[in-house]
Amino acid sequence: MVFALTAKEEVIVNRQHNIHLGRRLWELPAGCMETETPLAAAKRELREETGYTAGRWLKLKSLHLGKWSLGRAHFYLALGARKTHEQELEESEDIVVERIPLARYPALLADGTISSTLCHGASYEALACLESLGYRTARQKLKSGQGKSANRRRALGH
Amino acid sequence: MVFALTAKEEVIVNRQHNIHLGRRLWELPAGCMETETPLAAAKRELREETGYTAGRWLKLKSLHLGKWSLGRAHFYLALGARKTHEQELEESEDIVVERIPLARYPALLADGTISSTLCHGASYEALACLESLGYRTARQKLKSGQGKSANRRRALGH
Repeated sequence: MVFALTAKEEVIVNRQHNIHLGRRLWELPAGCMETETPLAAAKRELREETGYTAGRWLKLKSLHLGKWSLGRAHFYLALGARKTHEQELEESEDIVVERIPLARYPALLADGTISSTLCHGASYEALACLESLGYRTARQKLKSGQGKSANRRRALGH
Repeated sequence: MVFALTAKEEVIVNRQHNIHLGRRLWELPAGCMETETPLAAAKRELREETGYTAGRWLKLKSLHLGKWSLGRAHFYLALGARKTHEQELEESEDIVVERIPLARYPALLADGTISSTLCHGASYEALACLESLGYRTARQKLKSGQGKSANRRRALGH
């Protein structure tokens, strides 16, 4: 799964049709590994699903998919992403690619627009990494504006 | 899935044997819903797996399990958790309950000790909620110590 950022600090998001739900969900580019490394699979899926490629790749996390599975999810951060190819979608895929300003992205995470478990976890991980690299995200701006949090905590009785 | 915090700001973590991996993983209490609401299932799983109950429950998120599933994961934050019951484990379950100080928890998330995708996402969500309630987490302390991040960003060429 890839959290890809353009030079203009826009996140590449797929609005992908979900056949079970009958509507488009907001997803990060992702897919299954073929006979390749996790990084090669991430690069391929970003290129095929969105037409974007990126100059700099950082591994974020490799996590177990759960107690009932042997599988792993690999999260990557791709920097300097730009449109270099056409989409190459499989017949079952219906994906509209959007660029979301990084400053808007934490709000989509907070309000549940980023609604799948893997995209949610990968997004938190990517935002934390970007903050550690010195990027300003709205998550930090929200926090620095939370001067009332101590009062709020007292009001809740904690 | 439940992120439960005691009055002493300790997180309740299960060290649960994973038959596929042949070792214990660090997990948050969780399970499948029976004929009950998501909140009732969360309360039951916390009590059965750990023997803890909690006075205050906050819904964090309800997320899709992915593009190939109709299922949902429900994340809860439980405050004021305390040991009131004995564990009631199923025959297949082997769980050692640990209490991890909240200040130590973000390090376990960062270093991959919290290694499953759902626990990872629920933990980020719970820490963000706790910070908004005025709790101090090590995540914030780490960040406020990141005065060198702009230099680090320049060094990386971004």
